[in-house]
Amino acid sequence: MKPLEGLTLSDIEAAQRRIAPTAMRTPLLRSAALDALAGAELYLKAEPLQRTGSFKFRGAMSRMSLLGTAERQAGVVAFSSGNHAQAVACAAEMLGVPATIVMPADAPALKIANTRGYGAEVVLYDRIREDREEIGRRLAQERGLTLVPPFDDYAVMAGQGTIGLEILQDIGDTRLDALLVCCSGGGLTSGIATVFAARSAHTRIYTVEPADFDDTARSLEAGERLSNGPGKKSICDALLLDRPGALTFPILKRLAAGGLTVDEDAVRNAMRLAYLHLKLVVEPGGAVALAAALDPQSGLKGQRLGVILSGGNVDPELYAAMLAASP
Amino acid sequence: MKPLEGLTLSDIEAAQRRIAPTAMRTPLLRSAALDALAGAELYLKAEPLQRTGSFKFRGAMSRMSLLGTAERQAGVVAFSSGNHAQAVACAAEMLGVPATIVMPADAPALKIANTRGYGAEVVLYDRIREDREEIGRRLAQERGLTLVPPFDDYAVMAGQGTIGLEILQDIGDTRLDALLVCCSGGGLTSGIATVFAARSAHTRIYTVEPADFDDTARSLEAGERLSNGPGKKSICDALLLDRPGALTFPILKRLAAGGLTVDEDAVRNAMRLAYLHLKLVVEPGGAVALAAALDPQSGLKGQRLGVILSGGNVDPELYAAMLAASP
Repeated sequence: MKPLEGLTLSDIEAAQRRIAPTAMRTPLLRSAALDALAGAELYLKAEPLQRTGSFKFRGAMSRMSLLGTAERQAGVVAFSSGNHAQAVACAAEMLGVPATIVMPADAPALKIANTRGYGAEVVLYDRIREDREEIGRRLAQERGLTLVPPFDDYAVMAGQGTIGLEILQDIGDTRLDALLVCCSGGGLTSGIATVFAARSAHTRIYTVEPADFDDTARSLEAGERLSNGPGKKSICDALLLDRPGALTFPILKRLAAGGLTVDEDAVRNAMRLAYLHLKLVVEPGGAVALAAALDPQSGLKGQRLGVILSGGNVDPELYAAMLAASP
Repeated sequence: MKPLEGLTLSDIEAAQRRIAPTAMRTPLLRSAALDALAGAELYLKAEPLQRTGSFKFRGAMSRMSLLGTAERQAGVVAFSSGNHAQAVACAAEMLGVPATIVMPADAPALKIANTRGYGAEVVLYDRIREDREEIGRRLAQERGLTLVPPFDDYAVMAGQGTIGLEILQDIGDTRLDALLVCCSGGGLTSGIATVFAARSAHTRIYTVEPADFDDTARSLEAGERLSNGPGKKSICDALLLDRPGALTFPILKRLAAGGLTVDEDAVRNAMRLAYLHLKLVVEPGGAVALAAALDPQSGLKGQRLGVILSGGNVDPELYAAMLAASP
């Protein structure tokens, strides 16, 4: 099949059929305690339970199930801070495709180990001094590999959008006032927003980012892609990109209501509350949407909110330290 | 409605209809990594995601939804180490019924706090020197309360048995070779075993207990209810009963294939593996069945195994210590 050249509801429905045999149908969780803390009605999509521990498996399998025979034999390459890495490695193993994954040397040890565990070759790079896209493209050219981009690809976005279909299947169309989605490159948000635009257009879609990586929030306000600039740090290792994607941003600009941000303490608090009330391990980057839902300044009180918990791949040492710290 | 006077498949199907509006339909998880470690095909029922963080909500709501108007007005009393306590308190709050809960003073702080959080009156007792059943019965008599027993009640067992129905609905009848169920009083195992006896009779049902609380394993072997005796300790705070129930044991004796035991290190390892590969918080007592599935001595290799992960209410300090310890 040819790569997609745009993103429509029917592309996402087709992706849902392609990934159904391998992806987990994750539950939409409810918690009276979290509702009380948020002063809102929360519907929490539990993507840490997804295969490979994050939503990224959806996009990777959606894209890779479109590979032709020759492409499968030659293999794939991907660059990723960790969750897309594991997703591509796992999908590749399931499809019998060789995989080379370019990861930052400072990615969580768990994510690097898991990626190798799926049988992929891991190439480490320096996140500050080297350009992962350039390394990925070079490997693709030298070895004849197909690049599986983490977000700037319509088949990847279609896979992430299947989360939107599942939410509407679970609670019925048009019931949510707003939807909070963690955002880095924008693949997840653009996929889900496309579903809601077609089926629940009144639901406001908000991206959520760490305060120092608020490129999407500022870009949405400015109407053009802005960067964070160098030297920033965050515990949200999954959300450390410099600016929105070239293909995702036009969709976000058209469909997102705006961008929210949360600080690191709010992220740790959200992780702890997910532990206490959902019994779900959520990684820092996967907890930002819950942090925003719990923010008393968010202006979302009294509303019915969809909240994407996007991943749960967090090193035990970091998680233990978060639990040991007083709330 | 009258209390049940026995336990049949149709009692459990009726319980499923009663609890459907309030109980969570929990997913049956799969993990390639855990399959590889176990050398078996594991289907893991994720009851930490259940309302109140354990399967106990099913039994409590199943029983309490049968209360008449006068009984609801007078209120209920329950004795519990923590998970049944939270379950009765939460079901009572949802039904508008006053609840008094008798808990051991050394129960996990989280479980006591959550029980109070649902609006119940908590009465603490000394687990070594006092008899919780006697305290519960006295409170029932003095205050005219209805006792909601933790396991020795057919409507409670019917509620727990709904887990068996959901498993068979998810993977189809007759697919499992064996089912591993954590066991203390025996309510969960007797409910699930009743479903499987009717619908998948070849599936062998095993109880799983901590090594020092192996009363069910020894009782099954002896054919009569035996005790653990005093002075034993275990991190599995949910599984610290002295002997099998009077109503549950005859069912276990008829339907269980045998009893397995696991040591404390195996429990901690299972909790850590559930964190790493399922992203699910599992409490010690909730992890014994997974520990048994991973035991190389279990004789279950190469089989298709149902594994009940029964609860996830564990104090953050204990969980952090478990994660920080090397595997």
